[in-house]
This record gives sequence, structure tokens and C-alpha cells, in this order.
Amino acid sequence: MTGTSDPENAGSGEFSFIARHFRPLAGAEALDLRDDCALMRCPVGEEFAISTDTMVENVHFLSDDPPETLGRKLLRCNLSDLAAMGARPHAYTLNVTVPRGGRHDESWFSAFSHGLAEDQRRYGVHLIGGDTTSISGPLVLSATVFGLLKQNTALRRNTASAGDDIWVTGTIGDAALGLLVLQGKLKDSSGFLATRYRLPQPRTGLNLHGIVNAAMDISDGLIQDCGHIATESGVQLVIESEAVPASEAAASLGQNWLMQRLCGGDDYELLLTCPPERSRALQSACQDAGIPVHRIGRVQTGRGVRLLDAIGADIVLEQGGWQHF
Amino acid sequence: MTGTSDPENAGSGEFSFIARHFRPLAGAEALDLRDDCALMRCPVGEEFAISTDTMVENVHFLSDDPPETLGRKLLRCNLSDLAAMGARPHAYTLNVTVPRGGRHDESWFSAFSHGLAEDQRRYGVHLIGGDTTSISGPLVLSATVFGLLKQNTALRRNTASAGDDIWVTGTIGDAALGLLVLQGKLKDSSGFLATRYRLPQPRTGLNLHGIVNAAMDISDGLIQDCGHIATESGVQLVIESEAVPASEAAASLGQNWLMQRLCGGDDYELLLTCPPERSRALQSACQDAGIPVHRIGRVQTGRGVRLLDAIGADIVLEQGGWQHF
Repeated sequence: MTGTSDPENAGSGEFSFIARHFRPLAGAEALDLRDDCALMRCPVGEEFAISTDTMVENVHFLSDDPPETLGRKLLRCNLSDLAAMGARPHAYTLNVTVPRGGRHDESWFSAFSHGLAEDQRRYGVHLIGGDTTSISGPLVLSATVFGLLKQNTALRRNTASAGDDIWVTGTIGDAALGLLVLQGKLKDSSGFLATRYRLPQPRTGLNLHGIVNAAMDISDGLIQDCGHIATESGVQLVIESEAVPASEAAASLGQNWLMQRLCGGDDYELLLTCPPERSRALQSACQDAGIPVHRIGRVQTGRGVRLLDAIGADIVLEQGGWQHF
Repeated sequence: MTGTSDPENAGSGEFSFIARHFRPLAGAEALDLRDDCALMRCPVGEEFAISTDTMVENVHFLSDDPPETLGRKLLRCNLSDLAAMGARPHAYTLNVTVPRGGRHDESWFSAFSHGLAEDQRRYGVHLIGGDTTSISGPLVLSATVFGLLKQNTALRRNTASAGDDIWVTGTIGDAALGLLVLQGKLKDSSGFLATRYRLPQPRTGLNLHGIVNAAMDISDGLIQDCGHIATESGVQLVIESEAVPASEAAASLGQNWLMQRLCGGDDYELLLTCPPERSRALQSACQDAGIPVHRIGRVQTGRGVRLLDAIGADIVLEQGGWQHF
């Protein structure tokens, strides 16, 4: 972990800063964050799955989100990409671009790195490198995560087949509602929805190779992500809106929020397509991992996404909105 | 390559944007930038060297730097880290955080990605993934690069030995002077110095395993980076200031700029320590690669960095400055 040369910030104590907050997070492959690169080996017969994400203050998180959750949210979004392909979490790099002016002080970074340490233990990953820079602007965080999987076992988006059922893990739409709660537009005295926005639960630990035909994680919103599978696989996805699982907190808000739930992002649940004859294997694998899973529709020939209401009539989806006929 | 969910930017055409500007840069491991992760294998007996850097507008580059050079500079800074450890360039991920307001338009991104394409050919690397996000603030670019090398052959900073000579590739201080030129504080009608600031020349392609004892790249400035080797290796580095190679453009400015050259960052040359009996092997390896190399001092027992003037007297180095006695 070395700082990119910053002519305005020479002698800023960056090295001791890294030592205090990030060296405790580093694994052996990081060479103690003291050299130009990390060195990482891959077990014979395996390959790396690699995902990278950036989060920007006031775009992907709020200025008053607790520092403990920010690094964890970034890490978890990336871990969700690993889960989508069936890879085991292994390591990550972290780039932190800190606003000038001292708002992110020693205690802020202490909380930030403690949150990361907790998730390192939870998901079995370690830091292998990074960069710290300064900005006249908002906080920007980027992470690149590395997972391992056996060669030729990655789950893909482009392999859904007509005849598959569509399944999702967990509950859908909580994070989008949680953002509305944090923006003061919605009330949730339980705090559950806001937590779902701040701390997604990546569905790592599932071994679905040989069971599902296609997989991805839901980050853009259920309907948009169903569209990605439809496009990449050349099929049509039909969603039964009534079957899409809602949390207790979301359900208590009533049906008015259905479309926010189905179109809102940040769920980080898995979207899966599975042949009906392997439904039981899927349910069993999810049960073993303690992850709820629900069937929400079917894959058929055609293109795009269809959304059905309770009596099987189409809800017409439009770019940037929807209409109910 | 997928965008992190951006609730303010839904339906922004991010996918077609990626298709236009970044898909042409993607290698097979990127899965066409269509899936959640890239998949990357490591040849048996090799390992990955991994480095990551962030560059922020008005900190690491100037707002009016040509877009063709920005991605290349970021890539090259990272490639320099690979060169420092003796790894062959292989692949990279790219995170682009774009200021809102449209200043970075279609033609800007076209130039940006064309610059990257040129360096992909030059250095034999390909894009395997990334993320595009928006910001109310300056342009932020992050890259993580992957090199390959035989296991147990990485060059390190912590293996310099008393008795080694100190060597550097290329010329030292051009980038720091180039920044002064671009800031209007210095004149260079040749344009050479500004180009050295905008487009560093990472010294990839050298095979120095078994020849040098220690290596790193010069990014923070020669003296500071000598300090890193001294600290990590537990030795003292003695630099003969007169021996530090200057470009013609730098030399023509006279001796007044010596300390800017020795303390300024962004050179991305290699700093090497080599036992005297392997001097000829080092010079021969550099000659084969067409890379100039010069001896600038020696490693001895002790700690820290000493800088000597033309008659061998110490130039006293102080935190954040220097005094000449």
C-alpha cells in the first residue's frame, strides 16, 4: 500500500497513517503493505474471480452514514459479485480518497477500519494493498476483490434456459425502502430497512454449480437485473409480482411500494434460474447455508422482462417508470 | 464491468457507454465486461503481482491535461510498480468516477479510451473489469494492475545490502520540473519535461532477478524513496548528487533546480541496489532492454539517506526541505 505521489501533500504522515489503520488488516500476500505490489498465488486447478466497485459520498452512501458501515458496504457489494459467480472470498485491495479539511479524522478512520476488520473475519478475506489520496470533494472508496473457484465452474448470466424457474434469495426491495427511510420520506421504526441499505448481506457460501443454470446478484434492481439475464441469455423472464418475497418491515408498508421494491437497487441478493427438476437441490443447498430462497417466476422463449400481477395480467414496464393496466 | 447502483443516475445509458468506450479494451478474461466478475488464471509456477493506484484531478493531474494521457498515466504508474518487482504486465481493472455536468463528454471519453488502447498494445495488457460512477467533484481514476512472475523471483525493497551500489534508470527529476512548467513557474520550450510529467515511462521488460539485491520505483522522489529502501533494508543509502543523471532539458536549467529534481515525485524510474561484482550484468541487462542506467551512490551500514555534493561533503536533508553547508 503506497500513496500515489501527491505534490500538495508531501510529508503528510501517510506512511504512519497506513501503519495505524490498514496494516492490521493486511494478509501475508500484502508483504505487510511495505512494497510496490502484493504477491498472490492461485491453487492449481482454480482461478480468480475479480470484481471492482467504487462508492461515492452522497451517491452510493450518505454523509452521515456511520463510518463503521462504509468500508463494509463497499466490501460486501463486491463480495456479492463473487457470490453471484460462485467464488469463495479471498482478498481485496482498497483505495481511499479522503476529502481535505479534516472531517475524516483519526477516530473516523479508526471506526472505518474496525468495521472492515469485522467483515474480514466474517467473510474470510484480507487486505492485500491499496492507495490513499486526498480530494477537494466528497469521499470516494474503491475496492477490488478476489475470489477463488474451481476452473470452469463459474456461474454465468448468459446461460438461463427457457423452462427454468426464477428464484431469488432473501427479501427484495428493502434497501431501496431503507434509502427512503434515511432520506426522511418513509418511516420504519424497526430500523431494519435502513440497515439493509447500509449493510447488505452478500450470499457467499453457496455452492450452486451444477444446480442453477444462471446467476447474478441484484444490484440495479430486480427488474433491471432480470433484464440483464434476459439480454445475455436471449430469453424472456416472467416475474410474478405477488411471489417476490417481502420482509416483514416492507410488507407492513402495504402494496403502494411494490414498484419501488422491484425497481430499487442495492439488494445484493442472488437472482437465479434453475430447471424445475433441480428445485429441491437448490432449496436444499440454500437451507444448508441458512439462506432463504423463493421462486418468483419462469424463463421462457422471447425477450425482455414481463411482470405479472396477482391475477396474471401484465404490469406494463416502461423505461424509467411503470404503468398498471 | 458493471456500474455500482447509482439511485440518481438510473437509466443513464451506462451500459451502452461501457460498450462504446471500454468493451473494445477488454480481454477474454473480462467475459466481455458482461458479467459480475472477470475470471483470471495463473500459469503453473507463477504468481500475480498486484498494484493499485488512484489519481485525482488537480492533485495528480491537471484539469487541462489531454484526456489521451490521463488513463495512460494511471496505467503507467501502476505498471511501474510491476516493473519494480520484476513482473510482466498482464491485465488491469479501471474505476472511473466522472464529474457531473457533462464536462467529460463523448469526445473526451473517446480520446481517453484511445490513449488506453495505445498503451494496451505497447505494454501487452488488457482491461478485465471496472466501474463507472458519477461525482459532484473532480474526476477520480483508480486502476488495479496484474503482473505475472515466476514464484519466488520478486524483487523487493527490504533486501539491499551494505556494499551494494545504488543505480537508477533513465533521468531523475524531469516530472517534478515538468509540473513546474505546466504551472507556469518554469520554461521548457522543448516540451520534454511536461511530457515526462504527463506520460511516465515504466521500466517494464527488464529481468533483474539474480542481478540486483533490491528494487523499487521512484514515485515519491529519489531521496524519499531511497529512505524507504534504507528503512525496509536496515541500511544507509549514500547518494552522490553529481552522479544523479539529468536529462538535457533539466541540465539546461542549471544547478538551482537540483533539490527539486532529487525530492520531486512522479519519475517512475527504477531505484536499484546491486553488488559491485554484478555491475556488468546489470548494465548488460539494461542495454539489452534499451534502458539507460547510472550508478548514483552506495549502500553502507547505518540508517537513513545521506546526500553528498561534488566534493563529497554532506548536504543536510531536513523534513520538508534541505540546507546546503
